[in-house]
Amino acid sequence: MKMQRIETPGIAHYAYLIADGTEAAVIDPGRFVEPYLEAAKTLGVRVTHILETHRQEDFAMGSAYLAEQTGAQIVNGNFETFEHGDIRLNDGDSVNVGSLTVKALHTPGHTPESMSYVVYPPDSEAWCVLTGDALFYGTTGRTDLPDADKSIENAGILHDVVNEKLATLPETTVVLPAHGPGSVCGSGMAEKPYSTLGEEKQYNDVFTLSREQFAQKKGGERNPRPPFFRFMEQVNKKGGLAPLPRTETVPLLTPAEFEKQTRNQRVIDTREPEGYAGGHMAKSHSIWLGGLPVFGGWVSDEKTPVFLITDRNEDIYDAAKQLARIGIDNVDGALAGGFGAWRSSGYPIAASGSITPETLRKSASNYQVLDVREDDEFAGGHIPGAVHMYVGYLEERVEELSLDTDRPVVVTCGVGHRAGLGVSILLRAGFTGVRNLLGGMKAWYSLELPVES
Amino acid sequence: MKMQRIETPGIAHYAYLIADGTEAAVIDPGRFVEPYLEAAKTLGVRVTHILETHRQEDFAMGSAYLAEQTGAQIVNGNFETFEHGDIRLNDGDSVNVGSLTVKALHTPGHTPESMSYVVYPPDSEAWCVLTGDALFYGTTGRTDLPDADKSIENAGILHDVVNEKLATLPETTVVLPAHGPGSVCGSGMAEKPYSTLGEEKQYNDVFTLSREQFAQKKGGERNPRPPFFRFMEQVNKKGGLAPLPRTETVPLLTPAEFEKQTRNQRVIDTREPEGYAGGHMAKSHSIWLGGLPVFGGWVSDEKTPVFLITDRNEDIYDAAKQLARIGIDNVDGALAGGFGAWRSSGYPIAASGSITPETLRKSASNYQVLDVREDDEFAGGHIPGAVHMYVGYLEERVEELSLDTDRPVVVTCGVGHRAGLGVSILLRAGFTGVRNLLGGMKAWYSLELPVES
Amino acid sequence: MKMQRIETPGIAHYAYLIADGTEAAVIDPGRFVEPYLEAAKTLGVRVTHILETHRQEDFAMGSAYLAEQTGAQIVNGNFETFEHGDIRLNDGDSVNVGSLTVKALHTPGHTPESMSYVVYPPDSEAWCVLTGDALFYGTTGRTDLPDADKSIENAGILHDVVNEKLATLPETTVVLPAHGPGSVCGSGMAEKPYSTLGEEKQYNDVFTLSREQFAQKKGGERNPRPPFFRFMEQVNKKGGLAPLPRTETVPLLTPAEFEKQTRNQRVIDTREPEGYAGGHMAKSHSIWLGGLPVFGGWVSDEKTPVFLITDRNEDIYDAAKQLARIGIDNVDGALAGGFGAWRSSGYPIAASGSITPETLRKSASNYQVLDVREDDEFAGGHIPGAVHMYVGYLEERVEELSLDTDRPVVVTCGVGHRAGLGVSILLRAGFTGVRNLLGGMKAWYSLELPVES
Amino acid sequence: MKMQRIETPGIAHYAYLIADGTEAAVIDPGRFVEPYLEAAKTLGVRVTHILETHRQEDFAMGSAYLAEQTGAQIVNGNFETFEHGDIRLNDGDSVNVGSLTVKALHTPGHTPESMSYVVYPPDSEAWCVLTGDALFYGTTGRTDLPDADKSIENAGILHDVVNEKLATLPETTVVLPAHGPGSVCGSGMAEKPYSTLGEEKQYNDVFTLSREQFAQKKGGERNPRPPFFRFMEQVNKKGGLAPLPRTETVPLLTPAEFEKQTRNQRVIDTREPEGYAGGHMAKSHSIWLGGLPVFGGWVSDEKTPVFLITDRNEDIYDAAKQLARIGIDNVDGALAGGFGAWRSSGYPIAASGSITPETLRKSASNYQVLDVREDDEFAGGHIPGAVHMYVGYLEERVEELSLDTDRPVVVTCGVGHRAGLGVSILLRAGFTGVRNLLGGMKAWYSLELPVES
Repeated sequence: MKMQRIETPGIAHYAYLIADGTEAAVIDPGRFVEPYLEAAKTLGVRVTHILETHRQEDFAMGSAYLAEQTGAQIVNGNFETFEHGDIRLNDGDSVNVGSLTVKALHTPGHTPESMSYVVYPPDSEAWCVLTGDALFYGTTGRTDLPDADKSIENAGILHDVVNEKLATLPETTVVLPAHGPGSVCGSGMAEKPYSTLGEEKQYNDVFTLSREQFAQKKGGERNPRPPFFRFMEQVNKKGGLAPLPRTETVPLLTPAEFEKQTRNQRVIDTREPEGYAGGHMAKSHSIWLGGLPVFGGWVSDEKTPVFLITDRNEDIYDAAKQLARIGIDNVDGALAGGFGAWRSSGYPIAASGSITPETLRKSASNYQVLDVREDDEFAGGHIPGAVHMYVGYLEERVEELSLDTDRPVVVTCGVGHRAGLGVSILLRAGFTGVRNLLGGMKAWYSLELPVES
Repeated sequence: MKMQRIETPGIAHYAYLIADGTEAAVIDPGRFVEPYLEAAKTLGVRVTHILETHRQEDFAMGSAYLAEQTGAQIVNGNFETFEHGDIRLNDGDSVNVGSLTVKALHTPGHTPESMSYVVYPPDSEAWCVLTGDALFYGTTGRTDLPDADKSIENAGILHDVVNEKLATLPETTVVLPAHGPGSVCGSGMAEKPYSTLGEEKQYNDVFTLSREQFAQKKGGERNPRPPFFRFMEQVNKKGGLAPLPRTETVPLLTPAEFEKQTRNQRVIDTREPEGYAGGHMAKSHSIWLGGLPVFGGWVSDEKTPVFLITDRNEDIYDAAKQLARIGIDNVDGALAGGFGAWRSSGYPIAASGSITPETLRKSASNYQVLDVREDDEFAGGHIPGAVHMYVGYLEERVEELSLDTDRPVVVTCGVGHRAGLGVSILLRAGFTGVRNLLGGMKAWYSLELPVES
Repeated sequence: MKMQRIETPGIAHYAYLIADGTEAAVIDPGRFVEPYLEAAKTLGVRVTHILETHRQEDFAMGSAYLAEQTGAQIVNGNFETFEHGDIRLNDGDSVNVGSLTVKALHTPGHTPESMSYVVYPPDSEAWCVLTGDALFYGTTGRTDLPDADKSIENAGILHDVVNEKLATLPETTVVLPAHGPGSVCGSGMAEKPYSTLGEEKQYNDVFTLSREQFAQKKGGERNPRPPFFRFMEQVNKKGGLAPLPRTETVPLLTPAEFEKQTRNQRVIDTREPEGYAGGHMAKSHSIWLGGLPVFGGWVSDEKTPVFLITDRNEDIYDAAKQLARIGIDNVDGALAGGFGAWRSSGYPIAASGSITPETLRKSASNYQVLDVREDDEFAGGHIPGAVHMYVGYLEERVEELSLDTDRPVVVTCGVGHRAGLGVSILLRAGFTGVRNLLGGMKAWYSLELPVES
Repeated sequence: MKMQRIETPGIAHYAYLIADGTEAAVIDPGRFVEPYLEAAKTLGVRVTHILETHRQEDFAMGSAYLAEQTGAQIVNGNFETFEHGDIRLNDGDSVNVGSLTVKALHTPGHTPESMSYVVYPPDSEAWCVLTGDALFYGTTGRTDLPDADKSIENAGILHDVVNEKLATLPETTVVLPAHGPGSVCGSGMAEKPYSTLGEEKQYNDVFTLSREQFAQKKGGERNPRPPFFRFMEQVNKKGGLAPLPRTETVPLLTPAEFEKQTRNQRVIDTREPEGYAGGHMAKSHSIWLGGLPVFGGWVSDEKTPVFLITDRNEDIYDAAKQLARIGIDNVDGALAGGFGAWRSSGYPIAASGSITPETLRKSASNYQVLDVREDDEFAGGHIPGAVHMYVGYLEERVEELSLDTDRPVVVTCGVGHRAGLGVSILLRAGFTGVRNLLGGMKAWYSLELPVES
């Protein structure tokens, strides 16, 4: 038996390849299937099964495409919210991979169709359990996705299935979840290489809290639900999306071509916020590379053409791939040579600027402050007098802001990434004198500057 | 201006990428387009044009697929034997790539639609000419393909266009042909990194021989025409074939699965001839890795399922790719773990065996000798008493051989590769005591053993 | 906390990188340190500690070189058989890596200085234990190395420390040993991705057997001790060996150069046994690629120049690296182009040949049989009348064989690899008619042919 | 015969590998020899000769190290300014590589010891000439390096040798120089893939100008001579430098560690100028990645410890390598996680800022302008009233500037890279209100703003 975890950075997604003999199962593959095929080649096995724990919301799955490539069968639960699948398992059913037995357990709560898969070597107790989003390290998946109003109810259901079905497996069972810390499918995950059921029982809140406590805590969380979740659910019901050829062939454009083709189009600048502050193309959105597979889905969608400005050419393909993970495939062009090419060509450059916490503190009355963090973060403490709106809602609701467009605005978030996007949205909306607070609330706290809750 | 040659090993195919500014043309792309896309990415350019010199016969082109991936336009000559193309050029027409002018010259003789493309930097003389198979280093492409009976006539036409159209370019024009030494599209090519028109004029037979001499020499060559040429011509008329997903996902089979699935199927053993001689699966064909894109097309075709036995797992994907270059896409399985897995499983192993030239010489009367080289090679000198049949024809015409199936047969070729295929065909046909002459005619000559012409 | 296992194929060696924050420890690094540096780069950490569990015998360590490269400190046990180390720990001592505490446990038995290292995250129970060769999956390391006569005694000691020191850690503690199945440092290891102490307690013989039973079983094993173990112990006392530049620059030689330079030199042919049987250079030793880091050490040593014949050029660097893992650095040349270049050049080729089990069975009286497996394997069942000598001893003791050099000899082992080496040694010693039994005892058993014990 | 050009980006350095049979020569290798070894492996050849055209000034050579690795012999001219070499050739002498003859021509003028090497295939005219810095595409190397006062004299000598020795080779001879456009060893090189002697004769000023004209033009050029040139000459006299292990193992530091270790140390920030303008660590120097192998040598040297701040971790190793190319090996640490880690940790961030050409124009009286381009560039046209000092001299001579430290300064160069370094030097010197002119003179000219000469 062999097991490999294959991580997708940016979305903290964990897929797995479990092999025995010449057969292998891939669990929860993403859209770009090369790493799974590569792992299978390295181990000298063929992919015979693709196991889906649930209909993922935060990325496009690759099940259907991987099945087409390999001839493998797609295995999932026999529930309505899966619309596809070659083998539909009920709770307790099993399939074989080489000499391994893979037994399905129905573990709803995160989503109604969520399945866990327990792997048994021949004549042995369970070796591992693939839990999808039902059980993470340290906590479980969020329970508000199917219906935000039933989040507490779903959290109770999840507490039940984890404590009744999973908890009966041996303490040494290795827990293999679909996400690690940083995923938008949950919050509060622990960072550890691997964990066992015995370990989780000691500190994971689904075990350490009572059903009631857990339901209140987990069900009471307020996490934004990005608009692309709906599209992901739709495509994943059918096994996801195939890779998009154009991620490798985004047309590179000269500054002149870029300037011409992007008029009235969506331009995303993937540089870090300091780069954007120091100089950028007017009207562009600022989303740092790592933020694309989440915030790209807040400012664009699967139908809108997108153009990219990056720090360097290599980033273009990475950026296109990050967007494609959430179904944004229409990257119709990118500036060849990165922002430097724009600069070197003498085209107009706008600059926003930045401000240090000390300067803001000293001349607070000169500035309006906009805090673009999540509700829970803002509630936990913010700069006195700061206006609040989550960055995801900013583009659509900028007019609701009680801010004066003629007076300088300082935008802040945790450390400056989301504020960068906020800055660019304000600039597009006609604000002037918009600045990114250098180091964000992290710096503000480090300097022990005043905070209100 | 940038220029890169991108070689496809095994078929001695040269494609080129010529770039200027952010635009690039790819000339004569093969089916697997990654190297071209990679080159474009490295240079920071987009592929805007795909130039076809002619309808290739020896490999599946990738023009249509590359166009689909990049949005580039396919450019070729305005002749019937091309059935596709976005821009159809007549002799003297031109297109622009960045600031470069690319001018088409009609240079038939190898095939009727053959075009050459001359590249002019701004305000400059010609820098290079892409000659396809019209002009190689040292010679031209073969002239028998459209019609073997008109080979001499076509050679004359080719002599004319080279001497009249190409020869008028500057001596320093870099000549960039579609093939190098080892290609089945010609014979007698010189191995050099690059060459110029001035250099070629000094030693290339199309320049050093008179029209009449050249027509007799080139038109008189007898080169086999592999059966896959016809299929290649058909697909290339339409821009070739897309990559086949399964080259990366050939199903790996255990010996037991392999034994079961390959009954009455075509099995190709890609190990070197000594490995096959030392032990192999009965009924398998022996074709060394490098020989697949030529000899694979003699023993199989685009419709027949193929199974592979290799030296090691890594070779499987390479082998599948080599076959796919000539449209053989149905690789339905491969032995996981290479021949060693078969050996280790206790399945039956056949062995043919080998014989040294000295042993053959000493006991010549005990052996029948079969020489499987090409006609011209055999005519140039062979072992006294050897029977001759080109290896490509052997499978279909083995019954015509004047050989006794009950007496030992020694098979020979140049150095042993083609003889390995010959050995496997004889064994399949029921011959016993079949041996590969170690080192082939090369060794025979080295030992100065007797030869007859 | 991050943990990565870094495997060295061929010797089934497991090194580990354990990181926290920007610090990392590498445990038991091998001589070629690139994979450790690459892992550290990918994780964005610097190597601050190098932990040695014990003085390895089966490969050259890379501790000293890795320390020189990174500035890391070498950590090991405060025992005489380590002669180096920046931090020398006694049982119970600990060091910190980031926020992790790494606690040393003295766990002798495999070797007297063997240490295990328990890793504790902050305010947590043990997460993993790095056991070196003290505890493998399914069994322990062999106990005969320090002194074969005290093997039973050492096995008792090992049983004690495992059951007294390691067994008290939590059941969920991940066990991270230095070797997996296939290593010459033990036998009977289980193949599993990871294991926990709880799992091991259920089936590992050091837990399931009594002290007395375990001591008899483990101490009674008869494993050959390759001669390079002594040299490895010497170099590893001082932190191992630095990478040898020449593994990347083995001089490639034409057949003519190779023939001239290898006269009276040691030539190793790394092709599979069928290739060697089908044709080889006279006097060469046959050791398949994967067998080099064990059997290379039986036929050569750190002082003897070695020349290589491979299947293909790529294998040369791999082969040189495999040999360098056990300190054989003098690879003074390799045949450019693999054996095919020799064949194509018309140089003399010898062939041994192979024989099927059925043929041997039918005409048993014509053949002498030599079985070159280990004592325990031979004792478990062999071909009636077979002579036995372990392949490792064959070169030195070939004259002791009760075999007639003039009568055909069939050599056999498990499946044919070791027999291939045996064949080559017999040929060098002047035997004629030497054949490799195709498929070895595996095939013999599959065919249910007669066996004697 | 095979030929490969191996480029070192950043310094526009061209090395070559020329191979025949199993032998190869590497011409003018740089310090990091992997690409040469890789090319040799791919071609299946061994490096037997290392040819040096001259004692390079702009990068550390790798001749001695490559010779040590491969056993190759170093070949150069028999002149005092080479202090090493296994084979010392006089004008007209030759060595053999495979079947090729390599003939040396003494071609001084760039440096006194400069050699060119002409390559002759068997029984053929010259195929190529390796010209070092004696003949580039479009021009020659600069002639001021040995003695700026004798630049005109040297230019005359160079004109002589090129026109007398090289010009007699056939027109089709491929010219293979040591540098392309962008090198500091010359100016005005043409960008083309390859060129021939015939082509060069048509447009290269060493051919199109008379001796007198050329001597005045080339000898009259004013190119800065970076301080590291002297050190490079010293090490290259002895065959250069070996690779520095630490380029792969630059210690990664947390912001806290970085802050502590870099007090009073040299910190180089390799991000693009906009990133630096938007936020940076106080006192750091700004040098973009691509500028390190030139400007790193103006602000640091081989003895000074250097610490790096990059955009991302991957850049660290690239940056260290760029610096190591010019002998700056003491990279003692880098900020783990790039500038983002600094930002996220709440440490103090300084910002400079940028200004658009229009704003500067509109309120010109508010700003002092510093132009940091080369003398020739400044002389060709600059912003009215701009103060001039070449960026390379700025650190040492900042006090000579006729600028008021209390009034805002706008720094400009061609497009903003060198100005970024200028900005950081002014900030370190105590200037406040320092801004980088967005788009530099390129943008200024695009907007047709006023210029004075």
